[in-house]
Amino acid sequence: MTEHEAIEQFALDYLPSLEDYLRIPTISAQNKGIRKTVDWVKKAFSDLDAETVEEWHDQGGNPIVFAEFKENSDQTILFYNHYDVQPPEPLAEWRTEPFEPTIVNGKLFARGVADDKGELMYRLTALRWMKDHGGFPVNMKFFVEGGEEVGSPHVGEYVKAHRDELTADACIWETGGKNEADHFQVIAGLKGIVSFDLHVKTADADIHSSLAAYIDNAAWRLVRALSSLTDEQNHILIDGFYDDIEPLDMASQAAIDEMDFDADAIRKTYGLKRPFTSADPKRAVVTAPTLTINGLSAGYEGEGLKTIIPKEALAKLDCRLLPGQDPRRIASLIQAQLDKNGYSDVHLHYNLGEDAFHSDLNDPHLKLAKSVAEEVYGTGQVRFVPMMPGGGPAKHFVDALNLPVILIGVNYAGSGPHAPNENIRLHDYQQGVDYLIQLLNAYARPSVN
Amino acid sequence: MTEHEAIEQFALDYLPSLEDYLRIPTISAQNKGIRKTVDWVKKAFSDLDAETVEEWHDQGGNPIVFAEFKENSDQTILFYNHYDVQPPEPLAEWRTEPFEPTIVNGKLFARGVADDKGELMYRLTALRWMKDHGGFPVNMKFFVEGGEEVGSPHVGEYVKAHRDELTADACIWETGGKNEADHFQVIAGLKGIVSFDLHVKTADADIHSSLAAYIDNAAWRLVRALSSLTDEQNHILIDGFYDDIEPLDMASQAAIDEMDFDADAIRKTYGLKRPFTSADPKRAVVTAPTLTINGLSAGYEGEGLKTIIPKEALAKLDCRLLPGQDPRRIASLIQAQLDKNGYSDVHLHYNLGEDAFHSDLNDPHLKLAKSVAEEVYGTGQVRFVPMMPGGGPAKHFVDALNLPVILIGVNYAGSGPHAPNENIRLHDYQQGVDYLIQLLNAYARPSVN
Repeated sequence: MTEHEAIEQFALDYLPSLEDYLRIPTISAQNKGIRKTVDWVKKAFSDLDAETVEEWHDQGGNPIVFAEFKENSDQTILFYNHYDVQPPEPLAEWRTEPFEPTIVNGKLFARGVADDKGELMYRLTALRWMKDHGGFPVNMKFFVEGGEEVGSPHVGEYVKAHRDELTADACIWETGGKNEADHFQVIAGLKGIVSFDLHVKTADADIHSSLAAYIDNAAWRLVRALSSLTDEQNHILIDGFYDDIEPLDMASQAAIDEMDFDADAIRKTYGLKRPFTSADPKRAVVTAPTLTINGLSAGYEGEGLKTIIPKEALAKLDCRLLPGQDPRRIASLIQAQLDKNGYSDVHLHYNLGEDAFHSDLNDPHLKLAKSVAEEVYGTGQVRFVPMMPGGGPAKHFVDALNLPVILIGVNYAGSGPHAPNENIRLHDYQQGVDYLIQLLNAYARPSVN
Repeated sequence: MTEHEAIEQFALDYLPSLEDYLRIPTISAQNKGIRKTVDWVKKAFSDLDAETVEEWHDQGGNPIVFAEFKENSDQTILFYNHYDVQPPEPLAEWRTEPFEPTIVNGKLFARGVADDKGELMYRLTALRWMKDHGGFPVNMKFFVEGGEEVGSPHVGEYVKAHRDELTADACIWETGGKNEADHFQVIAGLKGIVSFDLHVKTADADIHSSLAAYIDNAAWRLVRALSSLTDEQNHILIDGFYDDIEPLDMASQAAIDEMDFDADAIRKTYGLKRPFTSADPKRAVVTAPTLTINGLSAGYEGEGLKTIIPKEALAKLDCRLLPGQDPRRIASLIQAQLDKNGYSDVHLHYNLGEDAFHSDLNDPHLKLAKSVAEEVYGTGQVRFVPMMPGGGPAKHFVDALNLPVILIGVNYAGSGPHAPNENIRLHDYQQGVDYLIQLLNAYARPSVN
């Protein structure tokens, strides 16, 4: 049995000892299970003989669990994970109990197994193996928060307040894994996001549509206001919207060329009826900011008809942002454009924002992450991805700690985070444990610096 | 006691004998109470010794009750009413039982008392008085249908098939009454309507908004498609939309000048936040066709946020139409314009249509209706209205029978047809009985011809 095989077997054998973590319904949006989960995470680090296991409360919100392993190495790796999960609803669509981990056909099903409890679990398994086989090759710190699924409202403050305790050489982020082509991805960044509503109210009551000859209509106001923000080619017509975008470096440009993109598979997966809106969709995912209507609502939406002028209309939107674009500034540019276009009665309500970031693909930690991945996952089976369009509070760590951030994990294209039947494949989990051990061993080699 | 006073007292005294009509929940949309209501209406005509009382079934739908009173007069008046009512929901907003007629502060509350059962009741009362005081001055026919609240789907066929039985000199339509200024209105027409949905589907599933960099969005498609149909001044940009509108005659133009319009009261009633979209709103109600969004629906409309690209989007709309504009042709012009504008994936679904019509205000029946109204309601208290923007199948009668149509009734501005707490004022009801008696007597005078 090779070391790789031994580690993969250990990952399977050790899994049941961690599954209680998946049994706790830690739903931050409903303030459920926080205490019990924090205790579980702290105990997991104590069982590994962490030098420090702390619970931070000083900046509000659900507590941060901080753990530190000091190994007298000149390399310190900071891990970011979160212990909260999405609500399991709609329950009727689950084929197994969401809070009872269940293995079916080589897949482990549970709410949070992909996002993000399973990701912490495979990291704990790697630590257990290393501890039992010669000790940890690097210093390690863990920052495990409990509000990621509600927008990480306090993480920025925690990182600033605890900058000294969090100092590290690189940060391994919560999640990652394999893409639709089953190629393992080493991801160097996240797009930013701003989520907001647009609301317009033209009257105190819905009005009989016979008066439409002279009474204005909230739905028409909203439709025209929205329409004034983009052109037919989906180009965003908001003054200053593109101004602050930082240019993408050459390494990232080259990585995009290497990324996978299967247009036919995507069309089929979603049953697309329309052509792609970008001539270079693979590049657009990384390099194009977006303005997306997530939902529209006005007036009568039921069966049959009701001939009214709606008193109010609402649109929910998000923008995916690039490094340099500040979510609050983008929101204010949108309101300013609405005002300029004659729609100052259409009001923007800011829901949440997260900054984009991306790390330099030439950073030695990232280059090493890719080359070690090729050893574990196979030559030609690994892709660099400069930025994923998901969200997360990584920019706070980048700004305060000045370190590269690396997104790796045990998800695959069918994991369905946030959806019913969230799952991971056991073999990805086993490979993830092996990969992390090899990666930390590699970081400990003097060549990284 | 004058004859007017005696009639008004009789109207009150006779009311309880008709109130059972209001107690029947005749809800055409739910196919409720039709049989019982038809029997009630037939008995009402039989009790007045109508020569003919028939139930027509030959063209489908709920039966038509047809009654005829032959008086050897050279004048025949046809009455159109309907016996079905709207559903009473939302029940929680009613202050009295919807199907238990209740008098509070001089107002009679019940579902259908304004639209349209109370209107038939005051007409039956007028007939009873005339029968007991010298007989009917004119020949009369009643066409009482049971599908008006579901769009009168079969009335056109019934009128064509029974043209000979329905021949008359003038038609008194189902409803009318007093406006916001409490001036009695003699109304000569109804705007038409076409009601339709616009639907667009861009994918088989909602898609994570991170893919908005290249995947099209049903909500954006709908917003842009709608936006291409009107300009900022609410002018309708549909080729051919205005082409078939018949010019308004001088008498109607003059009547518009005489109409009431209280801009401040309207602003206050509805709590309007926006200026009127027409510089001449009173005229626009009669002369401007409209394109109104009644409702919008797409993607996530719940609390919080869900960052998706909606797979489909729906808008509900109506147009108020003018004489000459055919509802089906207007619908096809809209689809053609969407196609021309690049939105052939936005599909129009036709819900229902009714033609506009208006009668000549110089017609002797209409002129007489106004002059008799001035005797009953007071000099300066009566207005001609060329067209109201409500709906109804009157065009079928105009086309097949070539007669003027006169809308008169006992509603007032606060009647709230289709709404909870639908009501009429008892004094309007008493005046309505008196007015109808005087009007029919006047029609019998040789001068009308």
